[in-house]
Amino acid sequence: MKALKTQVAIIGAGPSGLLLGQLLHNAGIETLILERQAPDYVLGRIRAGVLEQGMADLLRQARVGQRMDAEGLIHDGFELALNGHRQPIDLKSLTGGKTVMIYGQTEVTRDLMAARQQSGAITLYEARNVQPHDLKSERPWLTFEYAGEQVRLECDYIAGCDGFHGVARQSIPAESLEIFERVYPFGWLGILAETPPVHDELVYAKHPRGFALCSMRSPTRSRYYLQVPADEPIEEWSDERFWEELKARLPADLAERLVTGPSIEKSIAPLRSFVVEPMQYGRLFLLGDAAHIVPPTGAKGLNLAASDVSTLFNILLKVYREGRVDLLERYSSICLRRVWKAERFSWWMTSMLHQFPQADGFSQRIAESELAYFLDSEAGRKTIAENYVGLPYEAIE
Amino acid sequence: MKALKTQVAIIGAGPSGLLLGQLLHNAGIETLILERQAPDYVLGRIRAGVLEQGMADLLRQARVGQRMDAEGLIHDGFELALNGHRQPIDLKSLTGGKTVMIYGQTEVTRDLMAARQQSGAITLYEARNVQPHDLKSERPWLTFEYAGEQVRLECDYIAGCDGFHGVARQSIPAESLEIFERVYPFGWLGILAETPPVHDELVYAKHPRGFALCSMRSPTRSRYYLQVPADEPIEEWSDERFWEELKARLPADLAERLVTGPSIEKSIAPLRSFVVEPMQYGRLFLLGDAAHIVPPTGAKGLNLAASDVSTLFNILLKVYREGRVDLLERYSSICLRRVWKAERFSWWMTSMLHQFPQADGFSQRIAESELAYFLDSEAGRKTIAENYVGLPYEAIE
Repeated sequence: MKALKTQVAIIGAGPSGLLLGQLLHNAGIETLILERQAPDYVLGRIRAGVLEQGMADLLRQARVGQRMDAEGLIHDGFELALNGHRQPIDLKSLTGGKTVMIYGQTEVTRDLMAARQQSGAITLYEARNVQPHDLKSERPWLTFEYAGEQVRLECDYIAGCDGFHGVARQSIPAESLEIFERVYPFGWLGILAETPPVHDELVYAKHPRGFALCSMRSPTRSRYYLQVPADEPIEEWSDERFWEELKARLPADLAERLVTGPSIEKSIAPLRSFVVEPMQYGRLFLLGDAAHIVPPTGAKGLNLAASDVSTLFNILLKVYREGRVDLLERYSSICLRRVWKAERFSWWMTSMLHQFPQADGFSQRIAESELAYFLDSEAGRKTIAENYVGLPYEAIE
Repeated sequence: MKALKTQVAIIGAGPSGLLLGQLLHNAGIETLILERQAPDYVLGRIRAGVLEQGMADLLRQARVGQRMDAEGLIHDGFELALNGHRQPIDLKSLTGGKTVMIYGQTEVTRDLMAARQQSGAITLYEARNVQPHDLKSERPWLTFEYAGEQVRLECDYIAGCDGFHGVARQSIPAESLEIFERVYPFGWLGILAETPPVHDELVYAKHPRGFALCSMRSPTRSRYYLQVPADEPIEEWSDERFWEELKARLPADLAERLVTGPSIEKSIAPLRSFVVEPMQYGRLFLLGDAAHIVPPTGAKGLNLAASDVSTLFNILLKVYREGRVDLLERYSSICLRRVWKAERFSWWMTSMLHQFPQADGFSQRIAESELAYFLDSEAGRKTIAENYVGLPYEAIE
């Protein structure tokens, strides 16, 4: 069996694993990343595209923000369209100057891959059967298969950045974890198209026919979503039907202006809220989707992963530089405070904007009244805006 | 059959009927109030004690605010006690100067009764079998029994201020009304005691044992509440048991300071949210509890009745003085905008602060996260404060 050693072993080469690796590498802490898939597979996953200011700053801190700053779109606000009536949310003025960055997760991953390659730090793609061991000891280790060989990797700490279905969370004894979950009775049918976006800001549309979202990846590439039943067969959605339904859910002026075209990607994603507590077990730390899932309304998934990365990075920095091992056991509680606030906002945005097939009249009126109050009130609009641009990261002291 | 005539017939001599009567009388519009009960019965109902600034101003406008201004307690804030940790909500600084007035509903009613008696306007107490007729015509009328006689009362308009169980709403055909309702799985056990309040502001306590509220009527009279199961037998609650349970739910420093004494009133009230739409039918208008019920968390019941009174008064003023009969059909929609926002706030405060026996783990964490977010955020605290002091009344134009 081949033997390797590193300081921090990272499972998963998605954006959170790569970003953590980059920050640690820049700080002189050695990392090794294990990824089950090939690079092209990782880049093929079409995901989020709205970066909070905190995440954009973290990418800059990791020195991978150049292309984002050159090509990303800074958005000062977004729009709500409520039964055809458009209502702007001016993020910048409501938050005292904060904004969000439109830059696809695929591009973030591409930039992080390039930076890691250039740094010389190792990522082992197509590493199979990764298994963490002795997590409660001071010398945890992993085994995996790579290029036909069995490998043993010794390390100080393990970062589980391998997503909801990854091995990291599954390697923690079930009785040590508490799971909190909500499955929504609908999904999002999303398409990507080489068409100019219908509006230069994101539009979140609440409509009796169901929720719709107009988003974009660039000035020439649009991303649109429709609320559909959870068990909807995707074969029933031709491009033509998608565009017709989207038009029906948008305010008339936007529907008229919508440029349609062939989809270059089409998929249905279920909507789920999920949190596991605690987010650590011995020397294994869970980050991002490995520990929590949010419904995409509110665009918090990737951003939450980034704040977990920031927390673990800052803790490990103080551990290696100042011997502050006392911080290690605080990782989960620090992360969870922010995670639950983002879960709350994502649940709230989802509850406000979607049609719930089982909702009674009282619940529907309460949802309408929540929206009416929060949009009519300056303080209410501020709560929406400050959550959308992202609540501050907690300082590690 | 005896025949009477008036401009506005008011059913119910509680605070909303009397306040509407006083405002109309002062403006030279004739009213006649019909009340099923005797005056002492009306005064015996122990109810709310927190007046929004808008309601206090309306009482002053009606020229019945002298004793309230002399004896009422102005509160600049209230406190939340979350699992033993006290958190002040500074209403005055969060709302740019607004406050609430502590003055019991019984005292408001007493002042309004005295003012009406002095004005010479007629209230018929113990008027039985009140029945409205021809509501859709231009000449509605009522029949009732008074002092052994059958009476017919002709009028221009009828104001239904006769509460949740009154005849006003019941005289509207059921198919013309839509009902929105939520019944909560708990009630409030309340006591009144001649003891100094434990704190000079109201304290809303969330605790694993259940919600508790420390309130007061004056510097020597306290009002305390405990969340209890909906079907709780009141016989099981001796004064002693009440005080012990209250102490267990309060922060230690408050529990230590609590002065106990014999209860002079003790009762259990169910918690319910209820709204009927629309709040009018022909020339009959529903006000206050006749149209909507809120759970008492947030102290909105009496205040909502006052805003309905303000709306109907201002509409009738413009109808009689300027012939603006077009305003009449807008009564319900104007009221409902504010009613639903207060319903939302009351539902929210109730949901945040009570223990829900059936709640799953996710719902519990979301409730904790809502509280954590709204209290940590300046904008969040503002939303609580501006709702608590009362959202502005809509101008009638």
